[in-house]
Amino acid sequence: MPTLPPADIGAPVSEIDTPALIVDLDALTRNLDKMAALARKLGVRLRPHAKTHKSSVIAARQIALGAVGVCCQKVSEAEALVGDGIGDVLVTNEIVGARKIARLAHLARQARIGVCIDQVESIALLADAAQGAGSQIDVLIEVDVGARRCGVAPGAAASKLAAQIARSPNLRFAGLQAYHGAAQHFRSPDERSAAIEAAKAGVVETIRHLTAAGFACETVTGAGTGTFQIEGRSGVWNEVQPGSYVFMDRDYAKNTPDDTHGAAAFDHALFVMATVMSMTTSDQAVVDAGHKALSNDSGFPAVWQRPDISYHRPSDEHGVLTFVDGAQRLAWGEKVLLIPGHCDPTVNLYDWYVGVCGLGRPSAHVEALWPVTGRGAVI
Amino acid sequence: MPTLPPADIGAPVSEIDTPALIVDLDALTRNLDKMAALARKLGVRLRPHAKTHKSSVIAARQIALGAVGVCCQKVSEAEALVGDGIGDVLVTNEIVGARKIARLAHLARQARIGVCIDQVESIALLADAAQGAGSQIDVLIEVDVGARRCGVAPGAAASKLAAQIARSPNLRFAGLQAYHGAAQHFRSPDERSAAIEAAKAGVVETIRHLTAAGFACETVTGAGTGTFQIEGRSGVWNEVQPGSYVFMDRDYAKNTPDDTHGAAAFDHALFVMATVMSMTTSDQAVVDAGHKALSNDSGFPAVWQRPDISYHRPSDEHGVLTFVDGAQRLAWGEKVLLIPGHCDPTVNLYDWYVGVCGLGRPSAHVEALWPVTGRGAVI
Repeated sequence: MPTLPPADIGAPVSEIDTPALIVDLDALTRNLDKMAALARKLGVRLRPHAKTHKSSVIAARQIALGAVGVCCQKVSEAEALVGDGIGDVLVTNEIVGARKIARLAHLARQARIGVCIDQVESIALLADAAQGAGSQIDVLIEVDVGARRCGVAPGAAASKLAAQIARSPNLRFAGLQAYHGAAQHFRSPDERSAAIEAAKAGVVETIRHLTAAGFACETVTGAGTGTFQIEGRSGVWNEVQPGSYVFMDRDYAKNTPDDTHGAAAFDHALFVMATVMSMTTSDQAVVDAGHKALSNDSGFPAVWQRPDISYHRPSDEHGVLTFVDGAQRLAWGEKVLLIPGHCDPTVNLYDWYVGVCGLGRPSAHVEALWPVTGRGAVI
Repeated sequence: MPTLPPADIGAPVSEIDTPALIVDLDALTRNLDKMAALARKLGVRLRPHAKTHKSSVIAARQIALGAVGVCCQKVSEAEALVGDGIGDVLVTNEIVGARKIARLAHLARQARIGVCIDQVESIALLADAAQGAGSQIDVLIEVDVGARRCGVAPGAAASKLAAQIARSPNLRFAGLQAYHGAAQHFRSPDERSAAIEAAKAGVVETIRHLTAAGFACETVTGAGTGTFQIEGRSGVWNEVQPGSYVFMDRDYAKNTPDDTHGAAAFDHALFVMATVMSMTTSDQAVVDAGHKALSNDSGFPAVWQRPDISYHRPSDEHGVLTFVDGAQRLAWGEKVLLIPGHCDPTVNLYDWYVGVCGLGRPSAHVEALWPVTGRGAVI
């Protein structure tokens, strides 16, 4: 059962129960508009990654602003999005396991579905499932362009896979997935540029082999919030997959921006609201947001508009705030907004988005309650 | 909406879709029985902490074996448990915020409910809410016995709070919450003993002040899986709250056991099943379990029965397994069982427990699918 929502629509922000996942709807709108305009300017298709927001409401807004569809990582995420009417979903991941492949194949009767492979054995399993379901699946070959995770090495390997896909009923070779995840978080623009230049060389070499073997690469897709402008200008990628731009997080904010890469030009739009629930000494305040309210894998949260307060020592249900010398103390019962270290897995902890208008102003109020459609979708 | 269950009852273990939260039902039964026997032998009340399992099925089994009730940390967890028929729940935490206090007060009409306080202002808020709901709430004063988180300092402070509780309608002063969370994970038995001895001194001093002020301490409750035998033998605590013993995790397994503390005498009963989803180089295997499938706050998981394999570099949906020299490689599509670093927040990531009988034997099969009743209960 989903939990009860932590607020009522129309209520002042002060009445939101905590911990709660807050979306600044004004900042979200700015971020969505800015990315739509950037993708148009770059002249590439925008396919935002829904693994960040896991929300069919936000996916629909992205598509209404010109996105061709969305990405996700899991079959069950795709099911949640398609179930709410999203018509074009690319699973940017390898799907291994009979049950989930069958689910994906059936989903492809309801929406345009793409999926990645990096192993020849996958192809027959996908084809059999698609035949069984009577559906058609777009298949992209994932190329490892530097993240050292999934994907075949750049070069000749993709051609053999493309040939096998082309021979397979109910599958269509749709192109290459070339995403350099690690590069998104390289701090300096030069490091990010160098990483994507190297990735580009690998993609170009792979396309050369595919072309020689007679396979056209309709789609070359990849890129995230940290690098999408580099891929977008490369002349090689024709589709970009930024996800985190909708919310931004503390880790992305550590990237040094430059005029072209622009990750830091998006606004923080996602917060965890927490309450000071214990303050029995003057040197610390305990808030009701720990591991179950924040994913701390990429560092601890920042306290919004309070650089003089730091978050420490999370346990499951608690976090400890400490103060720099002279900082004004929080009051017992006071609420704070935390900027998560990493948005995607933090969103996964909640059933509800609390959409707020006018955040930071006296008129701030709850405008919307959105379910986190893909929450817990691990399959 | 909860996600679909990852398996069918009766199916062989090989057909479970991944990532999935697996309970070894045989090991769980052994752990439940062992703790029930230990508490009887110690002569203290057992009130297991449900924050580990978040499951009303397991809570009911604990109570059937003699537990007086369960603990939890959140109002919404208590609601989930009471909604499934658990009749006695102690919230071992401070509850701050009007909405959740009102919910707690209404819940106290349906079950015996206790809650902790460490701030005088809490008392009137709880009393008003209980009066409004027409309920009675047991109130325990939390004493900070070394965890440096919530709780008043040992000594005189509790007496003033007890007096205020005693004056308040619809509240009953029920005793002390004295839990040393940090001590649970001290590695050596001597460190754990020393920490609980110091905690005991603080509790004894607090009780002396309360007694002098005319307040009887009906319940002194606390202790976890790492130390409960020390508190249980202390003559001061009359109730213990171990939680992790039901499952154990990799972090607890690092505690050095001794004859009396016995944390390591419980068996691992909780696993995350994962699949090798990519293996494009021979030096690593990528599994489909990352931050969304495992809480890595207390360290990465171990691979069950494969000490020659290590888990590294988790991202949201992936983990990387590496092999010691000469280790037999896993096959693409092969499933592995991971022992989570930290059970409680890992359980929180799943909608379903997959209960397995005969784990490790050819006959192993899915025996039960249990909802994670308190999943996502952050309020």
